[in-house]
Amino acid sequence: MRYGFLGPETTFTHQALLQALAETPEEFAAPEPELVPFSSVATAATDLLAGAVDALMAPIENSVEGGVSGTLDVLAATDSITIVAEQTVQITFVLAAREATPLEELTTVSSHPHAQAQVQGWLRSQVPHANIAAASSTAAAARDLAAMSPQEARGRAAVCSPLAAQHFGLEVLAEGIEDHAGAITRFVLVTREGRIPARTGADKTTLVVQLPHNRSGALLEALEILSSNGVNMSRIESRPIGDFLGRYSFSLDIEGHIEDRRVSAALRSLHRLCPVVHYLGSYPRVDGQRPEVREDYADHAYDGARDWVERLHTMITPTDPSTVI
Amino acid sequence: MRYGFLGPETTFTHQALLQALAETPEEFAAPEPELVPFSSVATAATDLLAGAVDALMAPIENSVEGGVSGTLDVLAATDSITIVAEQTVQITFVLAAREATPLEELTTVSSHPHAQAQVQGWLRSQVPHANIAAASSTAAAARDLAAMSPQEARGRAAVCSPLAAQHFGLEVLAEGIEDHAGAITRFVLVTREGRIPARTGADKTTLVVQLPHNRSGALLEALEILSSNGVNMSRIESRPIGDFLGRYSFSLDIEGHIEDRRVSAALRSLHRLCPVVHYLGSYPRVDGQRPEVREDYADHAYDGARDWVERLHTMITPTDPSTVI
Amino acid sequence: MRYGFLGPETTFTHQALLQALAETPEEFAAPEPELVPFSSVATAATDLLAGAVDALMAPIENSVEGGVSGTLDVLAATDSITIVAEQTVQITFVLAAREATPLEELTTVSSHPHAQAQVQGWLRSQVPHANIAAASSTAAAARDLAAMSPQEARGRAAVCSPLAAQHFGLEVLAEGIEDHAGAITRFVLVTREGRIPARTGADKTTLVVQLPHNRSGALLEALEILSSNGVNMSRIESRPIGDFLGRYSFSLDIEGHIEDRRVSAALRSLHRLCPVVHYLGSYPRVDGQRPEVREDYADHAYDGARDWVERLHTMITPTDPSTVI
Amino acid sequence: MRYGFLGPETTFTHQALLQALAETPEEFAAPEPELVPFSSVATAATDLLAGAVDALMAPIENSVEGGVSGTLDVLAATDSITIVAEQTVQITFVLAAREATPLEELTTVSSHPHAQAQVQGWLRSQVPHANIAAASSTAAAARDLAAMSPQEARGRAAVCSPLAAQHFGLEVLAEGIEDHAGAITRFVLVTREGRIPARTGADKTTLVVQLPHNRSGALLEALEILSSNGVNMSRIESRPIGDFLGRYSFSLDIEGHIEDRRVSAALRSLHRLCPVVHYLGSYPRVDGQRPEVREDYADHAYDGARDWVERLHTMITPTDPSTVI
Repeated sequence: MRYGFLGPETTFTHQALLQALAETPEEFAAPEPELVPFSSVATAATDLLAGAVDALMAPIENSVEGGVSGTLDVLAATDSITIVAEQTVQITFVLAAREATPLEELTTVSSHPHAQAQVQGWLRSQVPHANIAAASSTAAAARDLAAMSPQEARGRAAVCSPLAAQHFGLEVLAEGIEDHAGAITRFVLVTREGRIPARTGADKTTLVVQLPHNRSGALLEALEILSSNGVNMSRIESRPIGDFLGRYSFSLDIEGHIEDRRVSAALRSLHRLCPVVHYLGSYPRVDGQRPEVREDYADHAYDGARDWVERLHTMITPTDPSTVI
Repeated sequence: MRYGFLGPETTFTHQALLQALAETPEEFAAPEPELVPFSSVATAATDLLAGAVDALMAPIENSVEGGVSGTLDVLAATDSITIVAEQTVQITFVLAAREATPLEELTTVSSHPHAQAQVQGWLRSQVPHANIAAASSTAAAARDLAAMSPQEARGRAAVCSPLAAQHFGLEVLAEGIEDHAGAITRFVLVTREGRIPARTGADKTTLVVQLPHNRSGALLEALEILSSNGVNMSRIESRPIGDFLGRYSFSLDIEGHIEDRRVSAALRSLHRLCPVVHYLGSYPRVDGQRPEVREDYADHAYDGARDWVERLHTMITPTDPSTVI
Repeated sequence: MRYGFLGPETTFTHQALLQALAETPEEFAAPEPELVPFSSVATAATDLLAGAVDALMAPIENSVEGGVSGTLDVLAATDSITIVAEQTVQITFVLAAREATPLEELTTVSSHPHAQAQVQGWLRSQVPHANIAAASSTAAAARDLAAMSPQEARGRAAVCSPLAAQHFGLEVLAEGIEDHAGAITRFVLVTREGRIPARTGADKTTLVVQLPHNRSGALLEALEILSSNGVNMSRIESRPIGDFLGRYSFSLDIEGHIEDRRVSAALRSLHRLCPVVHYLGSYPRVDGQRPEVREDYADHAYDGARDWVERLHTMITPTDPSTVI
Repeated sequence: MRYGFLGPETTFTHQALLQALAETPEEFAAPEPELVPFSSVATAATDLLAGAVDALMAPIENSVEGGVSGTLDVLAATDSITIVAEQTVQITFVLAAREATPLEELTTVSSHPHAQAQVQGWLRSQVPHANIAAASSTAAAARDLAAMSPQEARGRAAVCSPLAAQHFGLEVLAEGIEDHAGAITRFVLVTREGRIPARTGADKTTLVVQLPHNRSGALLEALEILSSNGVNMSRIESRPIGDFLGRYSFSLDIEGHIEDRRVSAALRSLHRLCPVVHYLGSYPRVDGQRPEVREDYADHAYDGARDWVERLHTMITPTDPSTVI
């Protein structure tokens, strides 16, 4: 088994993948999993679809920055990728340099724009004069710094994970520099095969829907479909479709598994309403929390209703209506 | 074939039954239909269920007086009776006596309470001093008057249909005496067998639903079920359930046939919501009017959605979720 | 003070009026209330509007038979009548005659059609051969029987209240003859003046609304208005408007008082939606039950919202928008 | 008058501001407007609030990339900033260098991350080997390139607007390099004073709402509030609140002006529902399109309803309810 992740090594995504593998029960664990870093979710997804890797860990949502556009857009673009698991990682950043340096001597701080957005308040107040340079990941920022000549590295620092600082032998100048302590990033493990993990009872389903643009109130209709099937929504992200201002697709996480009748029923109704519905998978919730389901949204209520209507259908006469009289 | 109707002969129900038989295509018409008058819908229904008659015509709704309680309650009480057709009859009343009599000499006017309610304004203003006597039907009022001795009949008149006055040889003292001109009564033809006429494309479905009493807003939920399946409602009648104040069942006519996917889907959802749903039949509309159905409520939209979700279900793995990784 | 009631004496309405007067605190009680029986709600309402009586007690709803059409239609027809109180009375009937008579010897049973509907099962099974005669009230049936000659009264019985049987000196042949034990009738006390009792915190408001007929789903919209203001509905009755089949007005009881902001807000929205809204009054609930009101439906939530929007309005500049730049 | 914009000169924001000033009617135009570039919306907003500039142009939404987080977050953070106008600019990018260079010789391409996201497909396919460097704006990328020594500039190019390339004397290597032709960015002009431009009849209102997190279905409720007041939504963006995963605020554009009764009514209801509602202004739509408003959402419908309920309130008696009887 080859697992891709948004690399290089020591990214939070790497950490999420290690967590996921550690949690896999021994009998199911791949004997020698190979971990493959990628420089972008898009290229990793291409390799996944081509069979070069078997699964892929990617960030999807951050409690401070919101949806991770790169991942959301890759997921929205294909029906051939399925989410099979989720992980969450507590996010914390350090400012690290080649050697102990007073902050006022820093001239350049490099990081991934996404990480940088989470520490920009701290950077503005603590290193206001430093230039901000973009790296392809927090780990790349650390690695690049470690690879520089001491001369080159002077006055430079990287915003990265504690793991990255340690791994690349950097000196931590400041830790916990994130503007909002307690940030969490959620990651999804995706595969290409479209195999859906069986229902555990504490599951989540991810969708991308595009609403009919000629009907105001279509988002309301979509939410009513969920509500009238007792399906709670735990995440909604708007993403522009790209053709006109004001045209969005929505990335949704809903509680429950496609095996749950209430989820199936909601999916059927969404399929009627929406020109595009991507089903991205049903998978166990990382927090194991089971939803409370009202009696009339339970499986047996849907099954009983279906049986009743099917029985009525058997009474329909095939001939001219007037013969019934 | 034996057809029951709310009698005696010459009631509007009789007229509705004659209309229905006249409209039946010749090749389907029963060779010698026998028409059997009943004194109440309840007793007629008992005979229908016992096999003594094959079908039964009964009034269900009047444009002035509203739902006909007797019929609604009989229909609500059983699942063994199915509506297979509807008829409408324009309602008009005459005041008739044994012989020409000035209105001021009338002492007693008899009629069915339901008819009387439709002429009470006229009676109050034109024959204010007459006693109002209840008969079991408008036709019975006319027949009884015709059967009296001339002595007994003096000062008496009946509110009845023009047909009844003619049939029993009565003198019409006044015609068109209804308070609201243009009243229409709707009748349904019911059978015991539970055979549902095939879909014509211009159909109606009749239901009786009892709402969960422990949930405020249940009527709203029921109407949302119809609305979210593109099903219009053409009649709603509240009827008390009989146990507590404020506890109702609702008798509904909805547009469409149980063969229409949108109607089936709405029925399924109502079955989940409601402790009791009586399906009383799907049958051709007497006005032949076809509903306009939005694209996402068409059969193919429901079928396409079902096929999509079923295909997704085939991807569910039967084993431990972690093996998917 | 003159109080009208649907008479004659000893009707359940009479009993409801006596209950209401007994409950009035002594300092507010009229010194010598005069009680005036009427033969119909319609004539009583005419006298009320003309000033001949000051208030009027009328039945509005029965737990078995549903809405009382006569009262509902009178209330729907005018804006000049206001409900100021409600009462409920436990309904039970006796079969009474001039003297002890075996049931099989009865030839005629008289009663008010409404009462008769509540005992028809019992009558069918116990006195199947007797004719049913309509009287203008249960009390009238008893009184008339008491006024007959013994000769005339032979073979006759009346369905009436225990009180009526006692009051008119009749012999009770059977008691508790109602088909559904535990029936309750609800009565309303109406006045002409349009004075609305102040809020008690446990109040009810009664409305009659006519929905726009050119818009399917209007009933759904009306119920959503109530729901989105946290207003529960405790009664809904459909009444035909009288012009076409399928055209209804709805008589509604809602929880709360017009002084409650959530009720005012719902009324305003209903007034926009509906071509006709009759406000029939806000009055204390006879059961004294106070509704649970969610925080965002409390008065202070509505007041805070109004103040906020009013403050925003003060910022609107009166001049050309481009001057704002 | 001093106008800030997201600089430096020649950004699309600069262009939007020039458009807005050109459209101002002459009699209202500031005599000598001063245009002040800022390096971030956050710092510009600080200067606006401090009085250093009088108005500020900022991008809010792009048809390809979606909401502009920096602007949305600044707007969400304060009640002291009001949007008074909007502008749209058609977005197109060029790749520019100091001198004509074959694409394969490029080693570094710099741009603003937001712009870069719009050309990344083109960059990947046309200059796959070049490093991508982040600049603080597209104009800065062009300006910095123009300021380099020829030596330094070798192998470097900038993604910028055609205007920037021209202004800084750069050579255009490729034009129209955006992945999605026809992209549009929408800009808003904000002021600190809280003056709201008067209603024109073709207006838009911008809000940021935070939903109650303890109630599933709150987004549905918010959309129902808009729908039940006939208010269409033209934009919805989710933004994380920053405390937990799955906690969002929503940035909304709705059709209409706070002077429209239907908008005021919707705002009042949102204020009750939501723990936080930021009103960000009502302003003329740049496309001048007037909404179609259903009769029951017109001003006179709201005013008539308010008058009716106020009249009813005058009938409430101040004393003990029992005195009404």
